[in-house]
Amino acid sequence: METTVYAVTGMTCGHCVASVTQELGEVAGVREVAVALDPQGTSTVTVTSEGPLDDAAARAAVEEAGYAVAP
Amino acid sequence: METTVYAVTGMTCGHCVASVTQELGEVAGVREVAVALDPQGTSTVTVTSEGPLDDAAARAAVEEAGYAVAP
Repeated sequence: METTVYAVTGMTCGHCVASVTQELGEVAGVREVAVALDPQGTSTVTVTSEGPLDDAAARAAVEEAGYAVAP
Repeated sequence: METTVYAVTGMTCGHCVASVTQELGEVAGVREVAVALDPQGTSTVTVTSEGPLDDAAARAAVEEAGYAVAP
């Protein structure tokens, strides 16, 4: 298993957590998504995947959910 | 048509708006729900209904969605 951590802005509530978790869960190889929510600032999204995570696909998933990933 | 306005706290994003709108839409007689979202404070929820709105049912719907109605 590999772990990749993203800093994500714009997540304000549990619905946002659910959206991001759902989109990331559809990325190939993703087994678990954990979100430490910071409604006022930058949330930390930890993705556990089988093998190396497709970084571009993961970032696209977060953006698809409507949020911004720090570069 | 009658219009009833509620002050609701805890709504932070569009998902919250969708949840409240959906729950209120299930209250008898409700025809339209409009939300002015204030993520930092108190949002204004305007309910348009055919005939008098069941106030207790409307408040229960907002609480069911997970938010607090000002008294």
